[in-house]
Amino acid sequence: MFESLPEIKVMRDPIHEYIHVDKKVIWDCINSPEFQRLRRIHQLGPAMYVYHSAEHSRFSHSLGVYEITRRMIDEVIQQENLSEFDRISVMCAALLHDIGHGPFSHSFEQLTNIKHEAFSVSLLQSDSAVHDILKQAHPDLPQSVIDIIKHSHKNPLLSQLVSGQLDADRMDYLLRDAYFSGTSYGKFDLERMFRTMRVVEDKLVIKLSGVHTVEDYIMARYHMYWQVYYHPVSRSVEAILHGFFKRLTYLYNQDSKLIQGLELFIPFLNKQPISNQDFLALDEPSFLHLLKLAIGHSDEILSDFAERVINRRLFEYVDVEDEAHVDSIKKKLEALGYDLNYYLYFATSSKTPYYPYALKEESMIWVVDEKMKLYELSEASTIVKAITLGKEKEENKMFFPKECL
Amino acid sequence: MFESLPEIKVMRDPIHEYIHVDKKVIWDCINSPEFQRLRRIHQLGPAMYVYHSAEHSRFSHSLGVYEITRRMIDEVIQQENLSEFDRISVMCAALLHDIGHGPFSHSFEQLTNIKHEAFSVSLLQSDSAVHDILKQAHPDLPQSVIDIIKHSHKNPLLSQLVSGQLDADRMDYLLRDAYFSGTSYGKFDLERMFRTMRVVEDKLVIKLSGVHTVEDYIMARYHMYWQVYYHPVSRSVEAILHGFFKRLTYLYNQDSKLIQGLELFIPFLNKQPISNQDFLALDEPSFLHLLKLAIGHSDEILSDFAERVINRRLFEYVDVEDEAHVDSIKKKLEALGYDLNYYLYFATSSKTPYYPYALKEESMIWVVDEKMKLYELSEASTIVKAITLGKEKEENKMFFPKECL
Amino acid sequence: MFESLPEIKVMRDPIHEYIHVDKKVIWDCINSPEFQRLRRIHQLGPAMYVYHSAEHSRFSHSLGVYEITRRMIDEVIQQENLSEFDRISVMCAALLHDIGHGPFSHSFEQLTNIKHEAFSVSLLQSDSAVHDILKQAHPDLPQSVIDIIKHSHKNPLLSQLVSGQLDADRMDYLLRDAYFSGTSYGKFDLERMFRTMRVVEDKLVIKLSGVHTVEDYIMARYHMYWQVYYHPVSRSVEAILHGFFKRLTYLYNQDSKLIQGLELFIPFLNKQPISNQDFLALDEPSFLHLLKLAIGHSDEILSDFAERVINRRLFEYVDVEDEAHVDSIKKKLEALGYDLNYYLYFATSSKTPYYPYALKEESMIWVVDEKMKLYELSEASTIVKAITLGKEKEENKMFFPKECL
Amino acid sequence: MFESLPEIKVMRDPIHEYIHVDKKVIWDCINSPEFQRLRRIHQLGPAMYVYHSAEHSRFSHSLGVYEITRRMIDEVIQQENLSEFDRISVMCAALLHDIGHGPFSHSFEQLTNIKHEAFSVSLLQSDSAVHDILKQAHPDLPQSVIDIIKHSHKNPLLSQLVSGQLDADRMDYLLRDAYFSGTSYGKFDLERMFRTMRVVEDKLVIKLSGVHTVEDYIMARYHMYWQVYYHPVSRSVEAILHGFFKRLTYLYNQDSKLIQGLELFIPFLNKQPISNQDFLALDEPSFLHLLKLAIGHSDEILSDFAERVINRRLFEYVDVEDEAHVDSIKKKLEALGYDLNYYLYFATSSKTPYYPYALKEESMIWVVDEKMKLYELSEASTIVKAITLGKEKEENKMFFPKECL
Repeated sequence: MFESLPEIKVMRDPIHEYIHVDKKVIWDCINSPEFQRLRRIHQLGPAMYVYHSAEHSRFSHSLGVYEITRRMIDEVIQQENLSEFDRISVMCAALLHDIGHGPFSHSFEQLTNIKHEAFSVSLLQSDSAVHDILKQAHPDLPQSVIDIIKHSHKNPLLSQLVSGQLDADRMDYLLRDAYFSGTSYGKFDLERMFRTMRVVEDKLVIKLSGVHTVEDYIMARYHMYWQVYYHPVSRSVEAILHGFFKRLTYLYNQDSKLIQGLELFIPFLNKQPISNQDFLALDEPSFLHLLKLAIGHSDEILSDFAERVINRRLFEYVDVEDEAHVDSIKKKLEALGYDLNYYLYFATSSKTPYYPYALKEESMIWVVDEKMKLYELSEASTIVKAITLGKEKEENKMFFPKECL
Repeated sequence: MFESLPEIKVMRDPIHEYIHVDKKVIWDCINSPEFQRLRRIHQLGPAMYVYHSAEHSRFSHSLGVYEITRRMIDEVIQQENLSEFDRISVMCAALLHDIGHGPFSHSFEQLTNIKHEAFSVSLLQSDSAVHDILKQAHPDLPQSVIDIIKHSHKNPLLSQLVSGQLDADRMDYLLRDAYFSGTSYGKFDLERMFRTMRVVEDKLVIKLSGVHTVEDYIMARYHMYWQVYYHPVSRSVEAILHGFFKRLTYLYNQDSKLIQGLELFIPFLNKQPISNQDFLALDEPSFLHLLKLAIGHSDEILSDFAERVINRRLFEYVDVEDEAHVDSIKKKLEALGYDLNYYLYFATSSKTPYYPYALKEESMIWVVDEKMKLYELSEASTIVKAITLGKEKEENKMFFPKECL
Repeated sequence: MFESLPEIKVMRDPIHEYIHVDKKVIWDCINSPEFQRLRRIHQLGPAMYVYHSAEHSRFSHSLGVYEITRRMIDEVIQQENLSEFDRISVMCAALLHDIGHGPFSHSFEQLTNIKHEAFSVSLLQSDSAVHDILKQAHPDLPQSVIDIIKHSHKNPLLSQLVSGQLDADRMDYLLRDAYFSGTSYGKFDLERMFRTMRVVEDKLVIKLSGVHTVEDYIMARYHMYWQVYYHPVSRSVEAILHGFFKRLTYLYNQDSKLIQGLELFIPFLNKQPISNQDFLALDEPSFLHLLKLAIGHSDEILSDFAERVINRRLFEYVDVEDEAHVDSIKKKLEALGYDLNYYLYFATSSKTPYYPYALKEESMIWVVDEKMKLYELSEASTIVKAITLGKEKEENKMFFPKECL
Repeated sequence: MFESLPEIKVMRDPIHEYIHVDKKVIWDCINSPEFQRLRRIHQLGPAMYVYHSAEHSRFSHSLGVYEITRRMIDEVIQQENLSEFDRISVMCAALLHDIGHGPFSHSFEQLTNIKHEAFSVSLLQSDSAVHDILKQAHPDLPQSVIDIIKHSHKNPLLSQLVSGQLDADRMDYLLRDAYFSGTSYGKFDLERMFRTMRVVEDKLVIKLSGVHTVEDYIMARYHMYWQVYYHPVSRSVEAILHGFFKRLTYLYNQDSKLIQGLELFIPFLNKQPISNQDFLALDEPSFLHLLKLAIGHSDEILSDFAERVINRRLFEYVDVEDEAHVDSIKKKLEALGYDLNYYLYFATSSKTPYYPYALKEESMIWVVDEKMKLYELSEASTIVKAITLGKEKEENKMFFPKECL
C-alpha cells in the first residue's frame, strides 16, 4: 500500500548507530520544510547555557524517536500485529510529534498559554507541506497521526509507543541529552529494555526480568531532571526570557508601534489564534536575530533583557527558604533602582521519579510475570515502592541580577 | 624517605586509562610472587559462569584500587595533609588488601570459617616476599599496612579510603565488573565523585552538589549485587562448590587416604592453622587441576561435583515460596536416588542499597553543606531516604540437579 | 601576576570530561560577547547537513582547544619551562584563535578573500571586549596573543601548541567532530599522545614509542577529511552558498537597492575593509534570518538559492571524469532554462594524509629517539613513509540541480 | 531440519551486546566439555603479561566469532542464499574453529610442530563430545564443519566467512583484544563493515563506499600486531616458555624419569601422534600447576624457567642491530655462568598491513563498484596502494636475563 524507497536510506546517528528509512512517506516528511526547520530549534534551549556541548536540535531528537518507534514495532510488537496503515501512522507520529516546537518552547508556552502539541496538531491538520505529504500517501493518514499524538486513537498502544511511560520520546531524549551534555546520568540499557518489553492486554509492559532495567531508567529520568532540565542555571535563562516577554507584552499593550522591527513577535502577543505561517516564521535564528535588534531598543529594560540572553549575562539565585537573605536582596535591588516586577523571578521545581497511583492509567508502568499476570511497577520493585512512598523533592529559588550581590 | 623509581611506570588499564607507579616499594610489591599470584585468581569466581566475559583477575582489580587511592590522596586529601609514611602505607594497603584471596573465596571462607582478610594480614605479618619488601622500605611499614586493613589504624581516614562506604575497593570493582561483564549497571561518575569529595572532621565526605553522583553510585551497587553478584546462576556455582567441599570433608574425615592426589586441600580441611605456604599453594589453576583429578575419583558424589564445576553442569533453582513445587522436587530427587544432603542447597540473598543507622559509623556516608555542616546521606537525599525506609529485597532459592525436572 | 579565580571553574565536556579554568583573564574572555557569540556559529557549517547530529558550535570547540593547551603546558612542557606571561598568552591564543569565524566561514572566505584568522587578529587588536580584557590583564597581552596566532612569536613552540602539526586545534576538532557526528574515524589516543610528547630543541616532538599513536592520528585526520569535511554533500551545501553569494554580489553591483532588507551583507560585498562591528553582526542566526527573508526576494535565482539552504534542497553531483555524462547534464540544464553561471559548480578535493617535505618546517612532525636524536616522521614510520610516497587522492565533482536528472 | 530451541538464548557480551543462539546444535556445542574447556585457555597467553587486563579467554572469543558469522549470514549473505545445512555448518565452524587451541599455543606449536587447526580437526573428526553432537544433528555435519575449517569446502565463501581477509575470526579478535587490553588501536566500524559488504561471484567483497572502513580495519590490524601481539614483552614470555620446553625436552630425552610429576607433557615431547584425550588434558590450569611443580625440580635450569613464568620474571631485550651491545651482553652472560643455549633467544617480527599480490587468492580483499566490477583493494585505495608498495616493518630482538645488565 505505502510506497517503498528504491533502497533503504540510512543516516548515521551517535545514539542509534543508524536511522533507517524505507518508506517514501517518511523520507518525504523528513525533507519537508516543517521538519527541516527543526534543525533550527535547539533541543535544550536553556540547558545548553549550562552544558555547553548540549547543542543538538529537535531534528536529531525527532529522528531518534522515529528510529526507536520503528524498532519497537519490529522487535517488541512485531510487524504482523499491526496493519501497515497503523505502522506508518505511528512512525509518522513519532517523527512529527515535535514539529510544533518553537525556540525556547517553555517560555513561549508560558507567554501564549498554548502547548506545543497544539501547534503540532495544527500543522498536521492543514496548510503545511507535511499535511500534504501525509494526505497524498493516504487520505486518512493526517487524522490518524493526529489521533495518536492527541492520545485519542482507538488503539491506545500506538500513543503509548510515542508518549507514555516507556515511550520512544523519553527514551531518545534521555540517552541523547546525556550523550550531548557529556553527563553519564541519562544512560540506561535500551537494548535490554527492548528485549524485555512485551505487549499484553494492549499495554506496553515489561517482563519481570526487566524490572532492574526499568529501575535504572527511572533513576536516569530523575537524575536528568535535577542535573540538567531543572538546573538552576537553566531556570535562570528562563527567568531572563520571562522578563523579556513580560516587558515586550507591556510595551506592545502600551502601543504596538513601540515594538517596531520586532513584528514577528506580534502573533504571540495579541491573544489571537496563531496561523501556521506565523508560528513557523519565528524559528530560533529569527528569534535570536530579533533579540539582537532589541538590544538597540530605546526601552532600557527590554534592551537589558535582550542583551542578557545574547551575551549570557544571567541572573544569580538563592533558596527562598533563607528569608532574611531574600529580604536583604530585595532591598538592595530596590535601592539600586531595579523594577522588581521584572528583576525578581521565583521558580519551583519538584519531581518524584515515578508516581504509581496516577490519575491517568497511561502514566503507569506495568510488569508482567511468567504467568502473564500484570503488576503496577511499584508492586514489583522494592526500590520503586520505596521511592513512591518517599517525600517529593522540591526546590524553590529566587532569581535576580548578580550585580546586587 | 621512600625511594622513587628512575621514571614513572605506567600500565594501560581500561578503567583508569593508566595505572601510575612512582615509588620503588609499590613497584616491588607488584612484582612480588604473592601479588603476581593474583593474576591466577579470577575476580568473579562464580559470576564468570553467568557473564562469560567477566574473566578479569584480582590482579587487575588490585591495581585499580591502588590507582583510585593514589588519586584520592592527590586530588581529594591533598598530598600535604598526609605524611609520606601514611601516604605510602595507604597505597600499599590498597594494593595488597586482597592478597589473601584464594580461588572462589566465598566457598573457601564457608569451608574454613576464615575470612580472606585474615590471610592478607598473615601474609603481611611475616614469612612472605611482600612482608620483606615493606619491612625493607621502612621497619614500621608492615604493621601500618596491617592496621589500615584491619581498621585499627589511629587515623580512621586511611582505612576509609581503602574500605569504607566511598572507598577505592568498591569504586574499582563496580566499574571494573561492569566493564568486563558488559553490563551497564555498575557505572557511575568517578570523576565527579573525586571532584565533590572532601575530608571534614577526619571523614571522607561528599559535598551537597555531589549527592546525585552518590545516589547513582548507590544504585549502581544495588544493581550490580542483584544482576551480577547475587545472580542465581552464580549461586548455583556456589551450590556445586559447597557440595564438593562437603563431600571432600566427609571423605577426609572418614580416612585421609581417601583424598589421595588431592593433598593440597588438606590444610583447609583439618581445622589446623593454615600456613602462608599452604594457603598460597592452592591458587585457581591448582584448584582446577585438582578438580579435574577428582573427576576420576572412585567416590561417585565427589566425582560428580568435580565434573559439574569443570564442565559447568550447574544446578537448577526455584523460589522456595512455592512450597508445593519444592516438595515435589524433593520427592523426585529422592526417587532418583540423589543424596539430599549434597544435592539440595538453599541460599538467601538480601540487600538494601544503603543502611543509614548502621552500628558502625564507618558504614555511613556523610554529606557536607556550604556551611561545613555534616548530614548523614539519607538526610540529604530524598531518594536515599525513601530507599532506606523501604522494605529490604530478599530472595530465597533452592538449588538442585536439573535432571530431576 | 595574573589574578586567580577564588575557586577553579569547571565545565562538563564530553571530550575532555571537564574544562578547567583557574585564571580570571580566561574566565572573563569566555564571558565576553565575542566569545559567547561563538555559541551561535556551528563548527561544521556544511557537514551538519550530512551528519545531522554534528551540531556543535565553535564555542565548544574553542573551550576544547584551550583545555588541550592547558594540559600540554602542564603535562608536556611543564609549567616551570614557560613564564606565566607566556603560559597565559598561549592559553588565551588557544581559546580565542577562532573568534574570527563567521557562519559557513569557508563560503565567506571565498566571497571576501579574507581569512578568518585576519578577523581574529583584528578583534584582538582593538575595539572589542576581548581586547580590553586582555589589555587590562597585562598591557602586552593582546600583542602576545596575536603573535602566537600569526606564527610571528619569538618562541615558535607557542604557535605550534595552538596550530602546528600536533596541535591543540586539530586534536580537539578531530575528536569532537567524530564524537558529534557519530563516526568512529576521528578517534585517536589523546592520553597516549600526551604521554609521548616532549619538547626538544624548541619543537614539540613525539617519542619513538609514540609513533604508532601518531600514525593513528594521521589516519584519523585523513578519514575525517574524506568522510566528513570533503563529503560531497558538504560540498553541495557550499555549491548552494556559492550560488547565493554570486547572485547577491551581482544584484548589489547592479544596484545596491536591490538587496534591501539584506543590508547586513553589504560590508562583505563592497570590497571595503570590514569593521569589527559589521563582522560580528552577521552571526549564523542573522545569516539564516536573512536567507529566510531572501526567499521572498523578487529575484528568482536569489530566492531559489536562499530557499535551497533553508530547506536543504541540495545539488546532485557526478564525477567529472565521466565526460559524456557531464555534457548530457549540461545540455539538460540549459534546456530546462537554468543559468549555468549559477547552477553548475565544480569542486576538487585532494588530500595527502601528511607531507614530509613541506616548505614550512612547522608542517613537519618530528620524532625523538632515546639518544635524543630527531627524525622527521616519515623516517621513523614505515606506514607514513609509504603514504607520503603514494599518489595523492583526488576527487573532482560537478554539482547541479537534481531536478534535471 | 535442525531443531530450534524453545526460546532464543542470549548471552551478554561487551563487544556484541548479546550473543544469540536459536539452534539446539549450537547450544549443545557450547555446553560440551571441549567448548567449556576454552574458558580455561586465555586468548592472549603472552600478551596478558603486558596488558594486565587482557585476561579474556578463547571461550569469549569463540562466541564472538560465532555471533559475527551469524549476523553476516543474516545481514550480508541473506538467509535465503544458503541452505540451512550450510548455514548451520558455517556457524558451527565459527564456534568451534579454536577448540584445538591449548595454553600458550604458539609455544606448543613450536614444540610439537603441529598447528592448532590440526587439533581442532581431530576433535571434530571423532572421539569427542562435539563430534557426537554434530553427528547426531546431521550425519554429514562433522565433515562439513571440517571442510570449512580446512578451506576444502566446495563453497569457498563459507571458509572466507570464518577465516579469510574480512573474516569473523579477525574482526572479533581485533575488537575484543582492543577492548580487554584497554588500547584504542583495534577499533574499527563493524556496523559499517556489515552495511557495505556484499557477496559477488562467491566472494565476500566490500562496496566502494566501504573502502574507508576497510582502510581503518587494516590499520587496526597493523597497530594491534605491533602494539599487542608483537610487543617485545610478549616475545619475552615466549622466550621463557621456549627455554622451559627446550630444557624439558632435553631432560626427557636424557631419561624420561627425570620429568616425574610432569607426565602430562610427555605426549607433546615424544614425537608420537597426540590423542584427543592427551591434548585436552593439558589446559592452562594444568599447565600452570605443572610449572609450579617444576619450580621444585632438582634441575636448576628447568626450575628457573618455570619460576620465571609463574612470577613473571621475564627476559630483557635489545635490538640486534647494535652488534657491540649484543656482544658485550653475551660475554657478561657467559661470565655469569648462564648456558647461552637456553638464556639467549632471538626473535624477528615483521608485518605488512596487507599484501595485495598474495599467492593465495583467499588473502586478497576485493572491492566492488556500482557497476559490479571487482577491484583488488590496493587498486581502490590510495592509502593501501601506498602501504603495499612501502617497506615491510621488521624488528629483530635478542632476549636475555636482565640480571646481566
